[in-house]
Amino acid sequence: MDDRIHEHAAVLVDWSARVEAGDDVVMSVSEGTHDLAVAVAEKIGERGANLVTTYGSAELNRAYLRAHDGEFDDDPDHELALFEESDVVLSLGGGRNTAAQIDVPGEVRGAYSKARERTREARMDTDWVSTVHPTRSLAQQAGMSYEAYQEFVYDAVLRDWEALADEMSEMKEILDEGSEVHLRSQDTDLTMSIEGRTAVNSTASVADDSHNLPSGEVFTAPQATTGEVRFDVPMTIRGTRIEDVWLEFDDGEVVDYNAARNSEVIGELLDTDEGARRLGELGIGMNRGIDRPTDNILFDEKMAETVHLALGRAYDACLPDGESGNDSAIHTDLITDVSDDSTLAVDGEIIQRNGTFRWEDGFEG
Amino acid sequence: MDDRIHEHAAVLVDWSARVEAGDDVVMSVSEGTHDLAVAVAEKIGERGANLVTTYGSAELNRAYLRAHDGEFDDDPDHELALFEESDVVLSLGGGRNTAAQIDVPGEVRGAYSKARERTREARMDTDWVSTVHPTRSLAQQAGMSYEAYQEFVYDAVLRDWEALADEMSEMKEILDEGSEVHLRSQDTDLTMSIEGRTAVNSTASVADDSHNLPSGEVFTAPQATTGEVRFDVPMTIRGTRIEDVWLEFDDGEVVDYNAARNSEVIGELLDTDEGARRLGELGIGMNRGIDRPTDNILFDEKMAETVHLALGRAYDACLPDGESGNDSAIHTDLITDVSDDSTLAVDGEIIQRNGTFRWEDGFEG
Repeated sequence: MDDRIHEHAAVLVDWSARVEAGDDVVMSVSEGTHDLAVAVAEKIGERGANLVTTYGSAELNRAYLRAHDGEFDDDPDHELALFEESDVVLSLGGGRNTAAQIDVPGEVRGAYSKARERTREARMDTDWVSTVHPTRSLAQQAGMSYEAYQEFVYDAVLRDWEALADEMSEMKEILDEGSEVHLRSQDTDLTMSIEGRTAVNSTASVADDSHNLPSGEVFTAPQATTGEVRFDVPMTIRGTRIEDVWLEFDDGEVVDYNAARNSEVIGELLDTDEGARRLGELGIGMNRGIDRPTDNILFDEKMAETVHLALGRAYDACLPDGESGNDSAIHTDLITDVSDDSTLAVDGEIIQRNGTFRWEDGFEG
Repeated sequence: MDDRIHEHAAVLVDWSARVEAGDDVVMSVSEGTHDLAVAVAEKIGERGANLVTTYGSAELNRAYLRAHDGEFDDDPDHELALFEESDVVLSLGGGRNTAAQIDVPGEVRGAYSKARERTREARMDTDWVSTVHPTRSLAQQAGMSYEAYQEFVYDAVLRDWEALADEMSEMKEILDEGSEVHLRSQDTDLTMSIEGRTAVNSTASVADDSHNLPSGEVFTAPQATTGEVRFDVPMTIRGTRIEDVWLEFDDGEVVDYNAARNSEVIGELLDTDEGARRLGELGIGMNRGIDRPTDNILFDEKMAETVHLALGRAYDACLPDGESGNDSAIHTDLITDVSDDSTLAVDGEIIQRNGTFRWEDGFEG
């Protein structure tokens, strides 16, 4: 087995999930992720934790969902009990075909998901971590060879996470103390208020309430957004490829939009509900292992030299205690490249220019 | 997908497990059984039952067990809760290497198994069914090509189970009313008492308390066995190939033994405990879809024109209410071919001669 698979397993179990002796762990294994699953099982055994492994097969889910009449029982006892009694849930994403469930009607998927609300909450109450094993299917989605995609994934996952966490702390401090963010780039001139908001360090560790591996972003919840922004990193939303989305905001709400390709998908998104026209997240990508978009949001939004904004729901962790943020059924990230002719400023002070942070070599204030 | 896989799934879900709307089902998927798992998930969806799928990977188990220090927690909460809240457990056997766990020390396997006693009981309290998907690894174990092995498995599984169940009822009636069984064949002349014992129809359906698919045997618990018997169907016991075991009994106990190959394994078995020297089971193979040994006990013991005897523990279902049978840590089946120069008689009346039952065409009383 590739050494990098063992290293990935070690980061997942020790840095991300902090698995300890006696923990009850559920590991969900997708198609194509067997090798990583074996390496993770070994680590969990070493830690003296207890393991139940579930099979998260997209083809199996598709067969089940298409055959079902759509009247799903609420939170089946056995599934709910499994997550209620678990301490840690590790999800190994991968799969053999990213389109495997494309012919399951949306309303069936929605009904299934809705019937599992308590189960999902029980799962979210654990120290859960989602990661990705490089599969050929994901390489294809990224438009990359399998070998090159493996390199890419391990560059993103096998970081010096402690050093990156320190760097992110610096960014969090700036955002927590700041009142106004100003983002400037091509077709982009946007101001947002972050007064009273709390930034979250996404360090890929449950110790920081961060649940994705790889991670490497600092995010907060902006409001009163005004100005325009161009998202030049292409992405797939609801199965459709979107390019060069442009949004104009006035006092927190989208007032105009266009896109170079499939702009109607953006229109549908904005019409979801009231919250869909406002921003729920401002995120700053800081993972220098991620150097290109791969059409996978788990990676793209952490890419160094990018900033992303999400339409829809905000995370409670960013808001004052007891407040809930920008209620919406959606949370859709859009990404802009800030590597060239760009500045990110907080309260008038430039903290990133052309992709370089002010604490990095080569920063030109 | 091969139509036979869908038929297999239908037999498993409808005939064997009797899955109904609202049932909480666990399906355990081995390596190499993905296609059957997808077909079974479809059937479970059709029935409106709820599904949790676990990954029963031998390679994963090996990695976990070898890495663990061997001090296993008793019945982890999450695993116990999963089975306690389940109505049905379907295990899809298969795998990619029957030797995958051969280098896990026996004491580690034993300790793991011992720490899961309540979990195992909870699983046995469900309507559980074990079946097998034809994999290349099992074909290899059987010494067969993959194509031929697929034919073999589907011949065994896709029976007219209702007709076979009727036939087995006839055999059960004979055994329930009988007092003494006499088995005669080459090197075999054995009498057993079955007075007061109850035969079990292994119809591959939980409705008859039968939990293997395929099945097709009628078995009871004999005692006071006297005489000799030659088991000429070869098999693998504890990883060792055994051929032509011969046992001599006196008043229920083995008093002499030999084998053409690896007879020391039989010696070790007999020395396990007191119950290991007595028979726990007399079984009569009645599945005419199984026409050759394949070194897999799930199939071999149901083979038509064979009789098997198990050293060790008896099943409570065969004994008078409240009695427990021949306590032993082992239950090891040994099989004898009765297709030629053989008779099976109950209370002096021949019910099978040269493999043909008395209700079948060609029977020569």
